[in-house]
Amino acid sequence: MITRLAEEERLSGAVLHAATLYLAGQVADDTSLDAEGQTADILRQIDALLDQAGTSKRYLLSVQIFIADMADFQGMNRAWDAWLDPNHKPARATVKAELANPAWRVEITGVAALPPVLPRPDQTETQYA
Amino acid sequence: MITRLAEEERLSGAVLHAATLYLAGQVADDTSLDAEGQTADILRQIDALLDQAGTSKRYLLSVQIFIADMADFQGMNRAWDAWLDPNHKPARATVKAELANPAWRVEITGVAALPPVLPRPDQTETQYA
Amino acid sequence: MITRLAEEERLSGAVLHAATLYLAGQVADDTSLDAEGQTADILRQIDALLDQAGTSKRYLLSVQIFIADMADFQGMNRAWDAWLDPNHKPARATVKAELANPAWRVEITGVAALPPVLPRPDQTETQYA
Repeated sequence: MITRLAEEERLSGAVLHAATLYLAGQVADDTSLDAEGQTADILRQIDALLDQAGTSKRYLLSVQIFIADMADFQGMNRAWDAWLDPNHKPARATVKAELANPAWRVEITGVAALPPVLPRPDQTETQYA
Repeated sequence: MITRLAEEERLSGAVLHAATLYLAGQVADDTSLDAEGQTADILRQIDALLDQAGTSKRYLLSVQIFIADMADFQGMNRAWDAWLDPNHKPARATVKAELANPAWRVEITGVAALPPVLPRPDQTETQYA
Repeated sequence: MITRLAEEERLSGAVLHAATLYLAGQVADDTSLDAEGQTADILRQIDALLDQAGTSKRYLLSVQIFIADMADFQGMNRAWDAWLDPNHKPARATVKAELANPAWRVEITGVAALPPVLPRPDQTETQYA
């Protein structure tokens, strides 16, 4: 089964299939921010999408970061480092790319897992005595 | 098991594993077309690959669009909008990137699911009476 | 369950979930090499990561190649062709992108499967006679 979240005119913000969540490219809502601020804004949106799908950044598998100007690499990383859970680091690739809106400094896409489904006590197998 | 489709010298056009299909970067066969025409051409090729794998655009999970010139963003989107199934929108990220052949205006890669396998009536469990 | 390999300060070199391995963007250790040499260096690192995860290039599903200068496309492909197993070709997309370190000519990311787990003879079901 496929579940789509945060649907927009041309795309879904995230699509869930087989315990794997595929994120659309996320960009900052507030484009007046610098690269560090835009990255923090994006990571908040990713947290919200992950939460909506029933998962969290602890289950993030892989991200791709597109950065409009490599001069912003340090600023992007400051927001990344502040957000990153050091015990649950995803794979990451970062390259420069011009983005669809020139006001966007950073765009992040990625793939996350759903947390494992644990059996609840009342769902354990009945013991016949 | 891994199944490879549309194999070329250096790559497979698509690779199927665990009900998930990974597309190679698809480019237009007819490079004389403008960005809108090349996008429509690419989307037809993606439809054909999905069909060959036993799935369809309804099961497309995520795409990445690389566009050689952001001035072509509207043209690319016209072809996208004409093709998109509004009830089954994938996640999407679009960034500018120079492509391997300067005649290519657009390149699209993505990930799709296979449709769920439903039990056929003659495969249901036998009822013992 | 998620397993992280080759952890660095900001990312994991590879992340394993549900028999699928997500690679971080891999770059050459020896940046004095040309694009062909850097690509061979990267592919050796990918082989090592795949091996560490219990898989190999035969199970590589998809790669993305970012190349800093399209003039290096032929050189990158020479290393690719020398490394590629022609019976197990992944999906591939290659685009130009400026990389975080100007000495890097090539960066490669990708997704691989784990090999199928085959039952061992001593794990076959007991036959009652």
